[in-house]
Amino acid sequence: MRLKIKIVQRIVAGLTYLLALLTKLVLMNQKVKVQKKTDDESDRYGLSWRLAVETNNAYPWRTVPEKCYNHVQNYISGGQYHNDLEVIVEHILSYASKIPLAGDGMDAWILDVDDTCISNISYYKGRRFGCDPFDSAIFKAWIMKGMCPANPAVQRLFNELIERGFKVFLLTGRDEATLGEITIGNLRNEGFIGYQRLILRSAQYKGQSAVRYKSAIRKEIEGEGYRIWGNVGDQWSDLQGECLGKRTFKLPNPMYFIS
Amino acid sequence: MRLKIKIVQRIVAGLTYLLALLTKLVLMNQKVKVQKKTDDESDRYGLSWRLAVETNNAYPWRTVPEKCYNHVQNYISGGQYHNDLEVIVEHILSYASKIPLAGDGMDAWILDVDDTCISNISYYKGRRFGCDPFDSAIFKAWIMKGMCPANPAVQRLFNELIERGFKVFLLTGRDEATLGEITIGNLRNEGFIGYQRLILRSAQYKGQSAVRYKSAIRKEIEGEGYRIWGNVGDQWSDLQGECLGKRTFKLPNPMYFIS
Repeated sequence: MRLKIKIVQRIVAGLTYLLALLTKLVLMNQKVKVQKKTDDESDRYGLSWRLAVETNNAYPWRTVPEKCYNHVQNYISGGQYHNDLEVIVEHILSYASKIPLAGDGMDAWILDVDDTCISNISYYKGRRFGCDPFDSAIFKAWIMKGMCPANPAVQRLFNELIERGFKVFLLTGRDEATLGEITIGNLRNEGFIGYQRLILRSAQYKGQSAVRYKSAIRKEIEGEGYRIWGNVGDQWSDLQGECLGKRTFKLPNPMYFIS
Repeated sequence: MRLKIKIVQRIVAGLTYLLALLTKLVLMNQKVKVQKKTDDESDRYGLSWRLAVETNNAYPWRTVPEKCYNHVQNYISGGQYHNDLEVIVEHILSYASKIPLAGDGMDAWILDVDDTCISNISYYKGRRFGCDPFDSAIFKAWIMKGMCPANPAVQRLFNELIERGFKVFLLTGRDEATLGEITIGNLRNEGFIGYQRLILRSAQYKGQSAVRYKSAIRKEIEGEGYRIWGNVGDQWSDLQGECLGKRTFKLPNPMYFIS
């Protein structure tokens, strides 16, 4: 009899323990669901804001809206940003594969540098992904480390363009006098080797808008007889103005806006 | 003693029942999670594809990729599409509010019609949100019903622009001879009242690309002395070419592409 009671006691204790465990699981899940609903609502606005920015409907803008912080952080750090770059590079390569190259070495391509070839996400992490205003001193200190990592998708694009016979021009708004050397080294260390020319902002273009400066440079390149087939940048100001190239490609960047 | 045993039996039965119930809940939740993971992966590609399309990186494209079907369906039907329209209209109105109107009745605005003012989502639902190819006969039958509903966000924009004193031109690629009457009626029934002019494609523009036709019309409008402050459409071909207006605004449309 005593043995039977003991067995029953053990069964009841065991069942009670399992019950408690499962109840905890169900409650935890409920909590996750409530959190998810809040995240979904904030995500909905973040998605809309980002679409407006990427289609250039929202300019000019100075900082990422506070309520988009979580969304932009997840977008950049959670894999979607890099996935977007990969898919766009696929579209670019599909276009590039259909171009009939003349074989005279004058088929050209233009790539922007910052947040196109190499990434400033490390700096922007420290500026809450663009929610905090741009700080030129901290940014310069970051650039001077020469440690901007390559965007893997764009590096693949860079290599394939060169392999296919395009002359690749890297065109950046970075100041030639102060940032030239470090930029050359950074690009080389990150595997950007074999480009036709790296063009930094020389004294005569100082103070000009990106649209004006980059248009003038592209005009010079065309003036030399190059045919610009593609033009890739993360800012609309890379892709507006004159001598744009036969096609332009906008890479995502919800962290900052350059006019 | 017998009573005690009965009580213990009931407790065990009760606990067992609760245990089974909670186990079922946990397993169901597990199944949802597995489904969600698959959805997330397909969503990841859908998001990237849609970004490429909306930034005009992906043109030309004929149909929505099969693997984007669920994503595009959820995007259009699940509220994000309409949320995106609302956020973009906010950006447009913010820009419009800063424009110094001359008061001479020559400050103009251009709106596209299909999937800008009024919506063809009903037709596209039947074409699997653009995964099935365009069917001109079915599309014409849909248009001839004259029942395209207004896009609420764009209707609000339309009304506010008129109220602020802009002359609103509706510019559409619809054929004037066959679709003129039904389009006028559809727009009126949906509350688009008070526009300056509705311009449909007349015989002389037949067969021209949207970019060429719409550029020619905008040139005529500017030739009359109007200042085009804004130009809004769901296709890039609404927003490319000549006489674009001081600013263009791209509305989302992942269902079809018009060159």
